[in-house]
Amino acid sequence: MLSSIHHSARRVLPQDGLDAFRAHFGDRFITSEAVRQHHGTDESPYPVCPPEAVIFPRDIDDVVAAVKLCNQYSVPIIPFGIGSSLEGHVLPIEGGITLDFAEMNKVLAINAEDFTVTVQPGVIRTQLNDEIRHTGLFFPIDPGAHASIGGMAATRASGTNAVRYGTMRENVVSLKVVTANGEVIRTSSRARKSSAGYDLTRLFVGSEGTLGIIVEVTVRVYPQPEAVTAAICNFPSLSAAVQSVIEIMQSGVAIARVEFMDQRTVAAVNRYSKLGLKETPLLLFEFHGSQTGVQEQAEVVQEIARDNGGMDFEWAERPEDRTRLWTARHNSHYSGLQLRPGSRSVATDVCVPISRLAECVTQTAADLEGMPFPYTIVGHVGDGNFHVQMLIDPDSEDEWEKSEQINRRLVSRAIQMDGTCSGEHGVGIHKMAFLKEEHGEAALQLMRLVKHAYDPNNIFNPGKLVSWQA
Amino acid sequence: MLSSIHHSARRVLPQDGLDAFRAHFGDRFITSEAVRQHHGTDESPYPVCPPEAVIFPRDIDDVVAAVKLCNQYSVPIIPFGIGSSLEGHVLPIEGGITLDFAEMNKVLAINAEDFTVTVQPGVIRTQLNDEIRHTGLFFPIDPGAHASIGGMAATRASGTNAVRYGTMRENVVSLKVVTANGEVIRTSSRARKSSAGYDLTRLFVGSEGTLGIIVEVTVRVYPQPEAVTAAICNFPSLSAAVQSVIEIMQSGVAIARVEFMDQRTVAAVNRYSKLGLKETPLLLFEFHGSQTGVQEQAEVVQEIARDNGGMDFEWAERPEDRTRLWTARHNSHYSGLQLRPGSRSVATDVCVPISRLAECVTQTAADLEGMPFPYTIVGHVGDGNFHVQMLIDPDSEDEWEKSEQINRRLVSRAIQMDGTCSGEHGVGIHKMAFLKEEHGEAALQLMRLVKHAYDPNNIFNPGKLVSWQA
Repeated sequence: MLSSIHHSARRVLPQDGLDAFRAHFGDRFITSEAVRQHHGTDESPYPVCPPEAVIFPRDIDDVVAAVKLCNQYSVPIIPFGIGSSLEGHVLPIEGGITLDFAEMNKVLAINAEDFTVTVQPGVIRTQLNDEIRHTGLFFPIDPGAHASIGGMAATRASGTNAVRYGTMRENVVSLKVVTANGEVIRTSSRARKSSAGYDLTRLFVGSEGTLGIIVEVTVRVYPQPEAVTAAICNFPSLSAAVQSVIEIMQSGVAIARVEFMDQRTVAAVNRYSKLGLKETPLLLFEFHGSQTGVQEQAEVVQEIARDNGGMDFEWAERPEDRTRLWTARHNSHYSGLQLRPGSRSVATDVCVPISRLAECVTQTAADLEGMPFPYTIVGHVGDGNFHVQMLIDPDSEDEWEKSEQINRRLVSRAIQMDGTCSGEHGVGIHKMAFLKEEHGEAALQLMRLVKHAYDPNNIFNPGKLVSWQA
Repeated sequence: MLSSIHHSARRVLPQDGLDAFRAHFGDRFITSEAVRQHHGTDESPYPVCPPEAVIFPRDIDDVVAAVKLCNQYSVPIIPFGIGSSLEGHVLPIEGGITLDFAEMNKVLAINAEDFTVTVQPGVIRTQLNDEIRHTGLFFPIDPGAHASIGGMAATRASGTNAVRYGTMRENVVSLKVVTANGEVIRTSSRARKSSAGYDLTRLFVGSEGTLGIIVEVTVRVYPQPEAVTAAICNFPSLSAAVQSVIEIMQSGVAIARVEFMDQRTVAAVNRYSKLGLKETPLLLFEFHGSQTGVQEQAEVVQEIARDNGGMDFEWAERPEDRTRLWTARHNSHYSGLQLRPGSRSVATDVCVPISRLAECVTQTAADLEGMPFPYTIVGHVGDGNFHVQMLIDPDSEDEWEKSEQINRRLVSRAIQMDGTCSGEHGVGIHKMAFLKEEHGEAALQLMRLVKHAYDPNNIFNPGKLVSWQA
């Protein structure tokens, strides 16, 4: 199974390359088995694939030195945040050196008046919010994992707040990046907008370490809302829930979060997080604004939901109730795993125009009928993005193949609906095969031209996102 | 003066190239003097610089044919919207064929449930809003000119609504582009978010016709707000106005528009648009939301303004009053010109982090003291973007040189404040010299690598944005 990762092309450092790394980094050039194994693992279903060595850079100079040596010896270099990627992004499938940014984890500047914060790439999203809380500001992007800001930028991550605040695409202001020849560039100023040249910031956001190494990230932050309330609404069906969301968005209510859970997910979450949610399809809402604004939003939304067969809101007004609810939602990946102890999770990630969402989920649920494994469905429904989590037996070739077939059919379905194979998890290894269907060969070739131009020796996380050859 | 445009490098079609164009386009390959002159003119201070010929493509096939021929004969090809660019973007300084998109001006698809509209590049922004009004949706980006959507995408335009709705960067969902070898690619699906590959959409947005020809644009649209109100507030000083804006944004009020005018602008606008505004520095606000939401926003904003020395709001609640006010604001370019009949306007366009805005404007006003020409200052103050409009005598070499010096010093000042030489007007010819100071040579080289990779014969709007050689 999963042996579809090609190890054949592993590139190794020659002796003088090893000597050069050791001369520069000394003991910090780590080749111990345990550290290498750890950095050959992410949350994808792929088997362990360790790098040749691991370095924990302490500053940009360390990164520059490592990139220059890797470029000189044509050996891969792979940036590593916390290893929470789902599609094999950080697996060194062609060998090489992993840079783990755990020690570059400082908040460098808080510019509260400008709503920007500059961080090293190893800063964790929850840490960032802890460190800026006193300013009255917050950073909204919240993928399921406690991911690093560098990894989130590289993956163009999002999460439950994207419907209101956007994704890393909208919220990265500027990056510092080390290029293949070891130069340090800044992709943009801190101005809120600019028409001064090609958008290098957005070219590197979502590039998954394949064009250069991100060594500094400036993100946009927002005033903490004066009031926050959350509510749960049960629906008779998925379609009723999705139709409500479309009408809510057309009403102009700037809803902060709107998450869908199918009844299987609700059951799993109830069990794992000790909640007593009614086990039907449901929407989980959050409203941000002034006291009266939040109340007004909630009234509009409740009325639309009711018109679509939704039941009365269950409120979570106290901060601890809200935290409990959203923690349960964020843990749905782990609560899903508990549906089948010992299983591995395979998660899909398509995103479609919201007008097609109900149809896409319904057809997918039909396709999942009769599969030998349990599954759950959750969705960032305001964005048209949803995840099927399939819990497969890690030793069953048959289940793996069936889950792959489900995913392939789902991706084709989404692309035919003018959607994408990945809303937020990224391409990594697992989705490379879908990019041609999604973008067409000519657009894919434009991506490849950038890769070739920026990384002539194919050292930056090779074998990910875009293939070197057509 | 202004002879800094190099005509020396004009490339012309050989006879067989002319024959090939005529064989394909017949009478539609236009070489009449009047049409060529018109397409050698924009709103920049540069002298007329006509193309060799003009084609009005009727469909994508026409564009493909023209690009293929231009690429075959290594002759420039320049896309043209309505010619409202301010920095010389559309001037064919190396010769070549201009494609005028006036006949590709159809709204192709309105996907109201998905909040997207797909248009041909020649659609004018006001036309777009006229054609979607019945759906309850609107398109917020409003540069000063009645610009085309294709031109706005190519320039990464914005305007007065950007503080709430973003710029073309945030509001272009997807593009169709003709590449150098005549292939038609689509940069993205219509999904609201995607992590499936490099962000080709944002690479082409703001590329000013230098990487390919945009032939279709899908933009994001928004529900028309239930309630809209506008208000004017006079301030004792620029600093008091800017400080109010910082505090308003920190309050979390999602203000839709906040525009600064200095007292010279107010005087000019009063005269040109027959208004009776009090001639002090002022802020022009607009609030979008529900009835109660708009009222609540306005109360918070009035209180903050008052704490900073602002006077009582003057309201413009009736739609016709609002329209009159915003039309006057949009016409400030033209009302400025009336300050000195027969003058040419030279407009600056820096954008800085808002914490530095008051300082940047104040220093710039001091620098303008004693200049021999009148000027006005307006600002999209919520974004940190402001324009000095200098009204120079078109026959005075001295005034031109002085206005250029003002601009150069202003750009350096903005860059030192971590800002940009262009908030929304783009680079064109006029700002190419500033990009090295802003981005650094290594980042500029990354831009150049994309240009070389996508346009190996340097046919796409050459001599604009990024120089071919370092």
